[in-house]
Amino acid sequence: MHAIAIHGGAGAVPRAALSAEREQRYRAGLEAALEAGHQILVQGGSSLDAVTTAVRLLEDDPMFNAGHGAALTRDGAAELDAAIMEGAAMRAGAVASVRHVRNPIELARRIMQKSRHVLLVGAGAEEFALEEGMALVPNHYFRTAERLAQLQAEQRGETVSEIMPPAPRGTVGAVARDAAGNLAAATSTGGMTNKRPGRVGDSPIIGAGTYAKNGVCAVSATGHGEYFIRAVAAHHVCASVEFRGLTLEQAVHEMLHETLRRLGGDGGMIAVDQHGGIVMNFSSDGMFRGARDSRGRHEIAIY
Amino acid sequence: MHAIAIHGGAGAVPRAALSAEREQRYRAGLEAALEAGHQILVQGGSSLDAVTTAVRLLEDDPMFNAGHGAALTRDGAAELDAAIMEGAAMRAGAVASVRHVRNPIELARRIMQKSRHVLLVGAGAEEFALEEGMALVPNHYFRTAERLAQLQAEQRGETVSEIMPPAPRGTVGAVARDAAGNLAAATSTGGMTNKRPGRVGDSPIIGAGTYAKNGVCAVSATGHGEYFIRAVAAHHVCASVEFRGLTLEQAVHEMLHETLRRLGGDGGMIAVDQHGGIVMNFSSDGMFRGARDSRGRHEIAIY
Repeated sequence: MHAIAIHGGAGAVPRAALSAEREQRYRAGLEAALEAGHQILVQGGSSLDAVTTAVRLLEDDPMFNAGHGAALTRDGAAELDAAIMEGAAMRAGAVASVRHVRNPIELARRIMQKSRHVLLVGAGAEEFALEEGMALVPNHYFRTAERLAQLQAEQRGETVSEIMPPAPRGTVGAVARDAAGNLAAATSTGGMTNKRPGRVGDSPIIGAGTYAKNGVCAVSATGHGEYFIRAVAAHHVCASVEFRGLTLEQAVHEMLHETLRRLGGDGGMIAVDQHGGIVMNFSSDGMFRGARDSRGRHEIAIY
Repeated sequence: MHAIAIHGGAGAVPRAALSAEREQRYRAGLEAALEAGHQILVQGGSSLDAVTTAVRLLEDDPMFNAGHGAALTRDGAAELDAAIMEGAAMRAGAVASVRHVRNPIELARRIMQKSRHVLLVGAGAEEFALEEGMALVPNHYFRTAERLAQLQAEQRGETVSEIMPPAPRGTVGAVARDAAGNLAAATSTGGMTNKRPGRVGDSPIIGAGTYAKNGVCAVSATGHGEYFIRAVAAHHVCASVEFRGLTLEQAVHEMLHETLRRLGGDGGMIAVDQHGGIVMNFSSDGMFRGARDSRGRHEIAIY
């Protein structure tokens, strides 16, 4: 039994504003990431490799808000956050506020596996990347014309969907259970368009946007990150499964539609339980998502 | 009924190595912070004000690893992290990897109260401080001769206690319950001596080193931060109280002596429950700590 789910961000893309052609590009990007992760699991690979690969592909796809095509800060730069966690030994790695790392999820994984640390930020994180032999890229690698137009529209106070193609806000992420029963979660993001430089959301915060614990669940979140941090959302979902006897579906539903709504935030979550059961839920307009498992489930959806 | 507890770091100070004169200085610093927080509660002030004031005094005291007197990075600079959370509305503010903010806990509180964000890091956090009218200070404000000697000893591979007065590693923090029943937690740190620039521990991570939820508990942690992040330690303790029916004492004991020990980390925690019951526990050699409440409890302790 193995299973993988991915997301490509939540909210901010009204159904009516999404052209068939753009929808097709989003679906193709999701399908490519889902297929790559699934194939790793089919071949007996680890959930850790599956979520790393899926997220890396979404980072490379300019349609999604992570890596190439990330949302831009108010200064017009890309500033990236990512985290990864594996549920067997509960090891984790995370990176925040980096500007020159092509695949932040790869750096998060190196931090988990090669350093004594969990979270590195800013220039110190990039120094570690260089020590690890990772080539840095110029910041303009991440910036697309579309994200720049989006930033300018927001700075003029325009509603984005009035003047340009809609794009998901939020993040990308993946969760998986491999045949050995190991769980893993990974999340990567450019953060909010027009964000203040140095602002960090929930994605790289272990327990907030990313969490995995074998025998319980793995979670990756997307949405208004500040609320997910305050609710310690991903860990709270897993604690509700472990200690309250809720199903994963109940725990995710309560978090999104009760706890976070009460705080004032919206977004979505993907999660997988110890048996490979997949939950994908959201309180926003939609969530770019996909799921696939060894029982034959195979879906891509937006709304 | 009101109560406050504070800590000034855990571990790394063998009892035999601590002179009576130095012990007195530590105790005086703890007593001053405890008294200031207590007086705020006596006068009907909020737990949020009490923990802010107590932590600010510990930041200003060069004996403790936060603010002035912070542990230094491998480059010889001070790099500071802090977080604050209040349990009524579950608002939180945090700052990581700042080098020029005299009182990081004040900046964390401004982030909570004046920004739309929870976590700001690096130069972006300092930009916000300036926008808020906070004066920045040169990095050498934080560096003391003792911390520099400690760094040099560690870089030469010497055991610190062999050559110089011992100092607590870890962090400073406070938790409080005010007469209105509101809980709050605050934590501030310079991190690990000889740390890699950009390394962020558990102190500014909501749910790991700092957490507060009215009706449940408020927690501030100190110790080997990477393990506290992976265990989502502070939130896990509160979830154990809320959902498993453990007492706060049981939940803290399990986290420190079972969960974190199994992962390989040590440290300490201070916590207060909804009724003002204080718990202070540690798995390290000692923890600089103090507690005071309206029932007459008043203690300062190290071992």
